[in-house]
Amino acid sequence: MQPQSPVAVLGGGSFGTVLANLMAEKGLQVRLWMRNAAAVDEINEQRRNGRYLPDCTLAPSLSATTSLEDALCDAEAVFIAIPSSAFRSVLKQAFPWLKPEQLLVSTTKGIEAGSFCLMSQIIEQECPGARVGVLSGPNLAKEVAQKQLTATVIASTDAELRERVQALLHCSYFRVYASSDTYGVELGGTLKNIYAIAAGLSAALGMGENTKSMLMTRSLAEMSRFAVSMGANPFTFLGLAGVGDLIVTCMSPLSRNFRVGYALGEGKTLEQAVEALGEVAEGVNTLRLIKEKAESRDIYMPLVSGLYEVVFNHAPVKEVARGMMLNVQSTDVEFVLPRQEAP
Amino acid sequence: MQPQSPVAVLGGGSFGTVLANLMAEKGLQVRLWMRNAAAVDEINEQRRNGRYLPDCTLAPSLSATTSLEDALCDAEAVFIAIPSSAFRSVLKQAFPWLKPEQLLVSTTKGIEAGSFCLMSQIIEQECPGARVGVLSGPNLAKEVAQKQLTATVIASTDAELRERVQALLHCSYFRVYASSDTYGVELGGTLKNIYAIAAGLSAALGMGENTKSMLMTRSLAEMSRFAVSMGANPFTFLGLAGVGDLIVTCMSPLSRNFRVGYALGEGKTLEQAVEALGEVAEGVNTLRLIKEKAESRDIYMPLVSGLYEVVFNHAPVKEVARGMMLNVQSTDVEFVLPRQEAP
Repeated sequence: MQPQSPVAVLGGGSFGTVLANLMAEKGLQVRLWMRNAAAVDEINEQRRNGRYLPDCTLAPSLSATTSLEDALCDAEAVFIAIPSSAFRSVLKQAFPWLKPEQLLVSTTKGIEAGSFCLMSQIIEQECPGARVGVLSGPNLAKEVAQKQLTATVIASTDAELRERVQALLHCSYFRVYASSDTYGVELGGTLKNIYAIAAGLSAALGMGENTKSMLMTRSLAEMSRFAVSMGANPFTFLGLAGVGDLIVTCMSPLSRNFRVGYALGEGKTLEQAVEALGEVAEGVNTLRLIKEKAESRDIYMPLVSGLYEVVFNHAPVKEVARGMMLNVQSTDVEFVLPRQEAP
Repeated sequence: MQPQSPVAVLGGGSFGTVLANLMAEKGLQVRLWMRNAAAVDEINEQRRNGRYLPDCTLAPSLSATTSLEDALCDAEAVFIAIPSSAFRSVLKQAFPWLKPEQLLVSTTKGIEAGSFCLMSQIIEQECPGARVGVLSGPNLAKEVAQKQLTATVIASTDAELRERVQALLHCSYFRVYASSDTYGVELGGTLKNIYAIAAGLSAALGMGENTKSMLMTRSLAEMSRFAVSMGANPFTFLGLAGVGDLIVTCMSPLSRNFRVGYALGEGKTLEQAVEALGEVAEGVNTLRLIKEKAESRDIYMPLVSGLYEVVFNHAPVKEVARGMMLNVQSTDVEFVLPRQEAP
């Protein structure tokens, strides 16, 4: 089954552009919406996105537009790759042109400050009754653009949506696996940004392989504990959007979150790290929101607590790092042996 | 609680020696049994194990012996760090001096050919009624010797055994987490050797981060599928003995299994790889045994099948590698969305 209706992608950052181009190269008619008129002209005239994907020649059937109406009319599926801070406002602008049968798929990771909404929940609020899915996984945009073999997850409770998104995106180098745990998949992609900061920090402190592996495993335990308390399926964290995304993020020294952690590990303050980086990493915002939520719901998250002290309260990094590792937790996987029963 | 009875460690390889020395440095009286009389003398006279741990000065309260009787008499706990090929025969020799109240803890990973027994099962067969535990996790012996912060898992259905082993081994740099899933923890440590071959192979083929992460995640899916079919708890694979050990093994280019895979990825045959390495990696034996078991029990293991073809049947590595990645599986985590229901 090769769908013939046009597809829309909202957001011309690196991942949105890569996704749009992947589908265009399959022969689909793809409309990429972005705000920046100069970038739209560059794509339509020169077949490139110089700012976010300079090394890639874009396929002829990809057309860019600044008009939401043009992008959305007749689109079978709408992929939303808008930064979390602008996600709701773009969706409000798009709403008049959305139709109930369209598939709305978020690729954005993050939590909305104040509401504590994930992106799929913003869609549900702004577009009641919409068909919603999320796409998440170990997907460095640069490597997808290079056609490196990559796997991702489409998560939705809507089986037909999953199947249609698989058909839209599947190709020889991009594999789309299915999950019914929308919230868990989305939380995995969001929470991992926090633990990438911890990974950067541990790298700066010169920790060995045993320690790094311990840190990633305890990160996974903490992520899944939080997610389960919010209603997610713990098994999701065994998959591509859980451990898969955690591995690729924690192993990629170029990610913004990792670099913030590395700078902190070197003894810099958050302000200095942000200044050197030129922007705030998403994980820093997520850390603050998760710390508050964990406290209000009494969820045990020693890594988040320790990182929060380092990032926001100038706590001495070596002492806190050691304290985070040496916390009293004594159970390996609490879904096997509950914490209160250990050892 | 600081136990005062002596402790025995059987096997003076790198992990056995490191574990013995760790406990000796805590002030415990530790008897390390090994076959090699010259190595015993070296330890007792020069405080070093030149072959397996040359850079480490061993603590005074560690004494080596070639006598199983001397090692085992009065020992509160017996850690067994004997290669899987000799595990049963050493246990048979030790049996006359073992007592029912002693704690028997295996640190050995592997499967006995023919019987398909894991080491804890060999203990149960040879020492009926014994108190049995297994120790497993992301524990490179060299890094433990360097006192790099390390976490491990003690798994047993015997809660008092878990607690006593935690007390024996816990120290500032070695953290012992508890699990009740003995079989799952042991299988994790055993199966990961297969997937380290796959990781070496992918490294030799120049695969990117997205692909490596995909491979590790699909490895974890396959390991847990097999283990669950054998009665293990799937959640164990979220922990230190599952994903933790997988990460450290797949990320360590020096491990024998990784190096075999790397050589295969470069186009060498198994015979050439083994010749260059000087020995057969444990994962090669495990691969053969798991392939047979999976076929006889009809367990879907595409990575094992593909690796088997490369390792034992000279199949062309690039084609098989691609085939392994592109198999028809469409579900992310089958414990969330069953495979037959996907997409």
